[in-house]
Amino acid sequence: MIESILREIRIHRSFLITTHENPDGDAVGSSLALAGYLKRLGKDVTVHFCDPVPELYRFLPLADSVRQDLPDQDFDVCFVLDVGEFRRAGKLVNECRRIGMFINIDHHLTCDRFGTINYIDSAAAASGVLVYRLIKAAGHDIDYDTALALYTSIITDTGSFRYSNANPEAFAIAGELVATGINTWSIAEKLYESQPRQRLELLALALSTLSFSANGDCASITVTLDMYEKVGACAELTDGFVNYPRSIRGVEVAVFFREIQPHLFKVGFRSKGKIDVSSLAAAFGGGGHHNAAGCTLTGDLAEVRKQVFDHLETAL
Amino acid sequence: MIESILREIRIHRSFLITTHENPDGDAVGSSLALAGYLKRLGKDVTVHFCDPVPELYRFLPLADSVRQDLPDQDFDVCFVLDVGEFRRAGKLVNECRRIGMFINIDHHLTCDRFGTINYIDSAAAASGVLVYRLIKAAGHDIDYDTALALYTSIITDTGSFRYSNANPEAFAIAGELVATGINTWSIAEKLYESQPRQRLELLALALSTLSFSANGDCASITVTLDMYEKVGACAELTDGFVNYPRSIRGVEVAVFFREIQPHLFKVGFRSKGKIDVSSLAAAFGGGGHHNAAGCTLTGDLAEVRKQVFDHLETAL
Repeated sequence: MIESILREIRIHRSFLITTHENPDGDAVGSSLALAGYLKRLGKDVTVHFCDPVPELYRFLPLADSVRQDLPDQDFDVCFVLDVGEFRRAGKLVNECRRIGMFINIDHHLTCDRFGTINYIDSAAAASGVLVYRLIKAAGHDIDYDTALALYTSIITDTGSFRYSNANPEAFAIAGELVATGINTWSIAEKLYESQPRQRLELLALALSTLSFSANGDCASITVTLDMYEKVGACAELTDGFVNYPRSIRGVEVAVFFREIQPHLFKVGFRSKGKIDVSSLAAAFGGGGHHNAAGCTLTGDLAEVRKQVFDHLETAL
Repeated sequence: MIESILREIRIHRSFLITTHENPDGDAVGSSLALAGYLKRLGKDVTVHFCDPVPELYRFLPLADSVRQDLPDQDFDVCFVLDVGEFRRAGKLVNECRRIGMFINIDHHLTCDRFGTINYIDSAAAASGVLVYRLIKAAGHDIDYDTALALYTSIITDTGSFRYSNANPEAFAIAGELVATGINTWSIAEKLYESQPRQRLELLALALSTLSFSANGDCASITVTLDMYEKVGACAELTDGFVNYPRSIRGVEVAVFFREIQPHLFKVGFRSKGKIDVSSLAAAFGGGGHHNAAGCTLTGDLAEVRKQVFDHLETAL
């Protein structure tokens, strides 16, 4: 598999690299690491994301080169990284017909095999791990800039090496990346110590709504439109809020109610592992994974909460 | 150095292991890893801490065997782990005279050479790393229980692999420990996902006091005795609170005011690295390190805050 990808890299000249909507650290890190590597090989490389690179990851080399428009150009090869479902690759799906071949590199458990070549390994901690393997298999070194991007990919996708995908390979690679001279604290400072102050102000309000149900098995918090207004925050600042109620001793399921319009709530569920929250979300027309799922409900807050907790009490 | 320690282990029979007051993850993890190893060798081992093992670390094998009393017994060797200053080893300093020799194992930059043998390496990410090296140098394997203890020591002392001591060796060792079959998420769940609910309730109150000074270079939060009463919490639940204001973009120094008695405040300082907060604390008769320091001040909250911020504005 790796050999056939390296062969396509050798024989072709122009490459497009893309990833999923709302790119996370692995999407950005793996894409930029691959872009830097192809550039080092003297290739013509374009990186296209349908959404801008989040502020958080702008410190990465080549982050500024990422385009949201699709250039009017033919490409020999399009790498699609970290994209479980092809439709999540955004505009590319419909607009880009002048591409010789797709190479799909991914570590999701369920991944469409949409590429001409599909390099999929769900045992890899991150898509960045697959890019690392590619560069090493080609016999090349990982330079400082590539190490920054790959390290960001791995630390974010493993939740700072806490999730179960923090496997021996992830640690071995991280150690090698750090040996190139990248500074772990300086990266952590950018990823974890650069929050907008409004986020903490909003967190204070959200945590003040903390409540429990199902005998303490479930903890929930709520963010309302009023709260956004009060601190001058927007919805994207609530990323990760649901991890706070989940982090409480004895809590198996955390629920996050987020008002997106008057009488319309996004409901996010997180599990510590024992409970499959995708089935909870499915009961309300939503979906997701075993440990993370969500749905959208209409009604006032009290109604929505009652619906969810009534179902939860029965289900747990 | 390692060879001489291994020699003492070989020729002696009864061992005491101790660490510093208020033991953290590295203190507990390195002590229990060494205790397990010596027990495997058939030695007579006593682990004595002056404070109980914090709830957080009770999942570690042998945590229940840790004693607070000093047994009426002679010891051939006393291992003192992770103790920068001998006086921090607590009661041992005064009471224990019937000890053949002290072996001092530590990774602090400034460490008294109080042992008969001093194995001190500030390049090691954690004291657990030194215990790991010891076991490996003896030609022995790391078993599952030892891996649990050493992994806890490393993940806690590197701030989940974020601090600058997360070096290539720390990652290499962590990878090897994980390969023994320990579950990274199950450990993280115990260390980071088992907070008392009162801690989050207190955090909500503390974050609601968030304020800024020195043009946003400094952020502070406050916890008062009233707040403890309101949520039924105690002071130890505020561990780590100061990291929240530090995590704000642009903030260089975080300050945490914690009321310990009416008109008496502990003031904790944290730096992102540019500012040396030990000199800030020293100005008020306190002390600490470059990135973490503290002092105690008397007065009402407004007075104490004014004193600190006046000094800060000048110093920054």
